[in-house]
Amino acid sequence: MTSMPAVPALPKGFRFAAASCGIKKSGAPDIAILAAEHTVSAAGAFTSNRVQAAPVLVSKQHLQRSRGKMRAILVNSGNANCCTGKAGLAGARKTSRALARECGCRAEEVFVCSTGVIGVPLPAEKLLAAIPALAGTLEGGAEAFARFARGILTTDTRPKSAAATARIGGQTVRIVGCAKGAGMIAPQMHTRTATMLAFVLTDVAIAPPLLRRALSAAVEKTFNAVTVDGDTSTNDTVVVFASGDSGARIGRPGSAEFRQFSRALETVCRDLALQIVADGEGARHVVEIEVRGARDSREADRVARTIAHSPLVKTALAGADPNWGRILAAAGRAGAAFDPAKTSITLAGIPVFRRGGPLAFDEATAHVKMREPRYAIRVDLGDGTGRATVWTCDLSEGYVRINADYRT
Amino acid sequence: MTSMPAVPALPKGFRFAAASCGIKKSGAPDIAILAAEHTVSAAGAFTSNRVQAAPVLVSKQHLQRSRGKMRAILVNSGNANCCTGKAGLAGARKTSRALARECGCRAEEVFVCSTGVIGVPLPAEKLLAAIPALAGTLEGGAEAFARFARGILTTDTRPKSAAATARIGGQTVRIVGCAKGAGMIAPQMHTRTATMLAFVLTDVAIAPPLLRRALSAAVEKTFNAVTVDGDTSTNDTVVVFASGDSGARIGRPGSAEFRQFSRALETVCRDLALQIVADGEGARHVVEIEVRGARDSREADRVARTIAHSPLVKTALAGADPNWGRILAAAGRAGAAFDPAKTSITLAGIPVFRRGGPLAFDEATAHVKMREPRYAIRVDLGDGTGRATVWTCDLSEGYVRINADYRT
Repeated sequence: MTSMPAVPALPKGFRFAAASCGIKKSGAPDIAILAAEHTVSAAGAFTSNRVQAAPVLVSKQHLQRSRGKMRAILVNSGNANCCTGKAGLAGARKTSRALARECGCRAEEVFVCSTGVIGVPLPAEKLLAAIPALAGTLEGGAEAFARFARGILTTDTRPKSAAATARIGGQTVRIVGCAKGAGMIAPQMHTRTATMLAFVLTDVAIAPPLLRRALSAAVEKTFNAVTVDGDTSTNDTVVVFASGDSGARIGRPGSAEFRQFSRALETVCRDLALQIVADGEGARHVVEIEVRGARDSREADRVARTIAHSPLVKTALAGADPNWGRILAAAGRAGAAFDPAKTSITLAGIPVFRRGGPLAFDEATAHVKMREPRYAIRVDLGDGTGRATVWTCDLSEGYVRINADYRT
Repeated sequence: MTSMPAVPALPKGFRFAAASCGIKKSGAPDIAILAAEHTVSAAGAFTSNRVQAAPVLVSKQHLQRSRGKMRAILVNSGNANCCTGKAGLAGARKTSRALARECGCRAEEVFVCSTGVIGVPLPAEKLLAAIPALAGTLEGGAEAFARFARGILTTDTRPKSAAATARIGGQTVRIVGCAKGAGMIAPQMHTRTATMLAFVLTDVAIAPPLLRRALSAAVEKTFNAVTVDGDTSTNDTVVVFASGDSGARIGRPGSAEFRQFSRALETVCRDLALQIVADGEGARHVVEIEVRGARDSREADRVARTIAHSPLVKTALAGADPNWGRILAAAGRAGAAFDPAKTSITLAGIPVFRRGGPLAFDEATAHVKMREPRYAIRVDLGDGTGRATVWTCDLSEGYVRINADYRT
């Protein structure tokens, strides 16, 4: 099982296309299509926000009606199609029908995903006008995949892709994925019902319920454990397509094959999730927040997320300032029961606080270590076996600049 | 009942002093004393953070031992005396004993309050050396009060004071207060057990349990309803001293007198709390978030606070960008059950979203209204009678600058 950053070897059976259809004023790519050559097993995870964009509502309905047998994905960037009323729903449905027509499948075999500004009517006519010609350019291969990965971006500074392979039943199974997202990032997705978008493709043969199970477990430990700003989007979506073209088949949940596949899927999801944090708006540091010694994993998770979202912690990370008091203060307001006198903190590899007492450490060394692009904060509450890990980024002036004049 | 911003007419019976004792490198005032001329009724509200500074622990203990009969307050800025172990506790105790000696009272009649960096040992010797001479300069009057109000500041750009009067039993009762706080502001205080500090003085006669009851109600609706950054401090403290020197006496909780006093106390607390938000680090706008139509007040509060803490909402406020989609998305992730189709939003007096649908509005007008120093966001979930109001500020590049190099 390996993981790689750049253009990967693709699983067979998938084709890609991307273009500009005029939604973005900049003329940057804003429409992308992914199509399987035949119906494939699919699973999806969608935002838990009470406010859900039209494409999320429609995609969930399609996945349910098709019983997890899907064919294609239509993505637009530059418009979230959220809070757009009946017209927004109608637009999501019309565009999925249009792509279905080109792919020779039913509308319910199409996922639709949107990302961009909330509350602006979707210019469905621009998408509808572009779909036929764009479908004509669908092609396989790494370059087409790379175009797709670029076509789904918004405030991202770079495309994000990841890959892994697994040996299953004597066959090599490939898993590749791509994702977008830099702000409004704190995915909390359910496989029943995530604006990060991620698309994962594999050539393993697996039934939809089993695929959903593997996705659910992977999402929980990866996408749902990263945050840029704590603002869970109305549009977050992860979709996995499994074509079966490798010949390797996964039959049972407990099997060695299922575990191998699950591990490889989790690797790809984590790689994509961390790329999203690394490209977080204005961010220069990816920081792993590991909490252990909590009464239970729920409390550990609450402490880790409160630290990961604290503006005072995140601005200290931006300044590479080893101000561990802010970390402890954030832990203290998390609503978890713990005793500061039993608590220890290690910051970028340097023990700074042990069982209630500050430790002497070299501030200059800590400052240098905190200028690295990636490091960890480890908090041990010293009181139980609960553990949790969350990944966050620093809060810089760049984040404020990007978001204080997003539209004006 | 009136409220005024500047130097107020003071209730009789209180004296003040402030100086620099060398804790702050800048040489700015960092030690302040408030002393009553005799033992007075007192009530306190303290942070609910699991991590509590030494002065918070000691002040709670003193208030309990003295049964709410107190005499003086010692405040230092520039050091939070938090996470400082046994030495920190000893320092808080020693300094309270030193002030008690000067005031001719018992140590348990002294509150100690600290604000500043967490985790740095308190230079108690500097405070101990300064207390005798400083106590010699204690004096009454508006100017001495103003010096005290300046002596407690940290990253504040200005001192904060407020006053109100009430006619009770034919007598005029005065209430004045001062406060500090600009960052690490999201007080969640309990009267049993906020780094905002606030000190309120009155000359009404009231028993400690009744004073605690009035303070508890006032704090809940004022200090506990404001936020700058969501980071509840380890040191937040509000103290009220009631000298009785006006001759007006409050005997029963349900009485007209108690209600009049409680209203005036709430006025002073709200005035101080809003001054803290207005002086929030880097802030240029105070924004009232009013949520109504929730299933209950708890859910309303959850939605209001999630909007008030959302980095995307707060950066849009900094840019005066009427991006209501971020408000709705934040509401949607608050964990409250509501239907977006029943939801309406008014932004700075402009209806922007009504019962699930975007409304056409003039963006330029909205932009101008959002450049005002103070305005409201009103969200009606359309589903119940639950209401809540929270006050927040914008998140600007200034906040990041202040906090990314707080110490380095």
